[in-house]
Amino acid sequence: MNKQRLDSILGHLAEQGITQMIITDPYTIFYLTGRYQDPGERLFALYINQNGQNRIFINELFTVPEDLGVEKVWFCDTDDYLHLLGKYTDPTAPLGVDKTMHARFLLPLIDGKCATAFINTSICADEARAVKDAEEIELMRHSSRINDAAMGEIVKLLTTGITEREVAGAVAGIYRKLGGEGFSFDPLVEFGPNCAIGHHTPDDTPLKEGDSIIIDIGCRYHGYCSDMTRSFFYKKILKENDRFVYDTVKQANESAEALIRPGIQLCELDKTARDIITKAGYGKEFTHRLGHFIGIEDHDYGDVSLANTALTRPGNVFSIEPGIYIPNDMGIRIEDLALVTENGAEILNKYPKELTILE
Amino acid sequence: MNKQRLDSILGHLAEQGITQMIITDPYTIFYLTGRYQDPGERLFALYINQNGQNRIFINELFTVPEDLGVEKVWFCDTDDYLHLLGKYTDPTAPLGVDKTMHARFLLPLIDGKCATAFINTSICADEARAVKDAEEIELMRHSSRINDAAMGEIVKLLTTGITEREVAGAVAGIYRKLGGEGFSFDPLVEFGPNCAIGHHTPDDTPLKEGDSIIIDIGCRYHGYCSDMTRSFFYKKILKENDRFVYDTVKQANESAEALIRPGIQLCELDKTARDIITKAGYGKEFTHRLGHFIGIEDHDYGDVSLANTALTRPGNVFSIEPGIYIPNDMGIRIEDLALVTENGAEILNKYPKELTILE
Repeated sequence: MNKQRLDSILGHLAEQGITQMIITDPYTIFYLTGRYQDPGERLFALYINQNGQNRIFINELFTVPEDLGVEKVWFCDTDDYLHLLGKYTDPTAPLGVDKTMHARFLLPLIDGKCATAFINTSICADEARAVKDAEEIELMRHSSRINDAAMGEIVKLLTTGITEREVAGAVAGIYRKLGGEGFSFDPLVEFGPNCAIGHHTPDDTPLKEGDSIIIDIGCRYHGYCSDMTRSFFYKKILKENDRFVYDTVKQANESAEALIRPGIQLCELDKTARDIITKAGYGKEFTHRLGHFIGIEDHDYGDVSLANTALTRPGNVFSIEPGIYIPNDMGIRIEDLALVTENGAEILNKYPKELTILE
Repeated sequence: MNKQRLDSILGHLAEQGITQMIITDPYTIFYLTGRYQDPGERLFALYINQNGQNRIFINELFTVPEDLGVEKVWFCDTDDYLHLLGKYTDPTAPLGVDKTMHARFLLPLIDGKCATAFINTSICADEARAVKDAEEIELMRHSSRINDAAMGEIVKLLTTGITEREVAGAVAGIYRKLGGEGFSFDPLVEFGPNCAIGHHTPDDTPLKEGDSIIIDIGCRYHGYCSDMTRSFFYKKILKENDRFVYDTVKQANESAEALIRPGIQLCELDKTARDIITKAGYGKEFTHRLGHFIGIEDHDYGDVSLANTALTRPGNVFSIEPGIYIPNDMGIRIEDLALVTENGAEILNKYPKELTILE
């Protein structure tokens, strides 16, 4: 186990007066042990305790030969493994559990009185994961470098008549060649009016002159996600206003990014971008929050929205992704990942944002 | 809501003495209402009660305009929706919940004393879903018809040097053309020694003369899954024993299928297939259970294994998929879906099983 990360979670638990927690979120187990295991319907659980008596519970069907830095407790499908789990918890203290722990695992622990109370303490892991350490930052930088290079490859595919689905279908191979390890989310490829449909699934729409284009893509690298959006025009700009829309979104993106430093309220970033878009007359066409935290999951806990008054901290990584979507017409979104540094911010995506009319 | 299906679940609950249940499994909600909604991290819940006071709880972010045959209770992210849910439950009776209900939803209901006890009653929905009605059977037949046709298209792609990944990559388009609605699981395409690796992910291995080939594919049709495996040889059979292995698996598949009728123990089917393979000397090389139930999910509750002594019932649909896997050499699996009828069985897959050497 990564001691620094474990101590971070235990520290947050201590602030809540909690001495023990069962972690069932496979991403948090990966965060602590470096081992990702999709448990499917089975139990894969890490028990942590302020007293250092940590254990990981692994079904024999999973192949986990490596040393995880924590004692393994093996069980098989026919074992009474929930009773087993209950033997390790402290029945005289409350027990933290993950928000996504399944009823089938939680109810037997409650019925078995394995703790004095059961409390959703996911936030303790969420808060720890929201502050990336040096190793995580390096992986996130590299994941975004691959993403920048992938965008360059995708742009080369954009020719008259190619469909959204064909472009989206090529992304997996591009990542593979560049060293990416699969998607952090399914690629979004939108042409023309489809750009204005929230999370439109790539279909057989062909690319044609005058279309706006949105490409929103992300890969994984050693478990860490990238996520970037660029928008283009194809062959020509149909209306002068399309240029104004692009410039407005770009200004919103760059103004919010310029503001990032430790100790600023996340809502302040959203407001800065939103004010620019609203002043340009498109407040209602910016239909979502400015961004979301990202790391081992594409959408980690935490967002960049008007509702989030929390302060940024060095090591936070989140997206800045303003957009304007004009129904039945066109849409533009420009998204980067931003890392909060000790003194300011590092924008992890370097792919250019200048208005580009693809030939 | 589908009254017959609701009554089936309520009947199973009544047998346990349970009057009320909160269903959060989106597939069971689909089963009852015809509406599938991926809830992501949000609550999407159906409350059912023997007294008929049913309600469905929907976040305003989900677009559900249609009549679901049950009163809708809308809420938004900032509402205290768990308190809202608690207003509808009967606090004087136990409450059934789904096995996968998340702690974040379950713990507040427990803390709010919304029921006298909280019980995992997923089995009641599982048992109902295990007996398909006429409408479901028609959809499953069609899903498997599409799957049969897809196998025919895939076989045409198998030429020297094509990679597993290229073949797997073509399956989505084939289903689309045939009217399938996406995968019920990611296609498995295995050549030569890869056939002996359990759930090998398609990679850049090229097809070559003498290879055994396993194609294990499934699509969805109106929400219902298909799942079939066929095995082939490419250009020639390297060893006479490969033919024996194929014939053994085929005999195991056909013998088990010939036995299917209402009222037979599921373990009996597994034993029949396993005995044939064991007698042929490959008992250790048949490394998994004979089959699994299938319906709205590729792996529904229930399996065809030595451990399952339950009796078949008309309307059950499960896979029969014996295999022999010889490490570093080759592998064969032959899988059909079987429907238990009033008098016997209907095999939903018609794609031929004769040993085929592809040219």
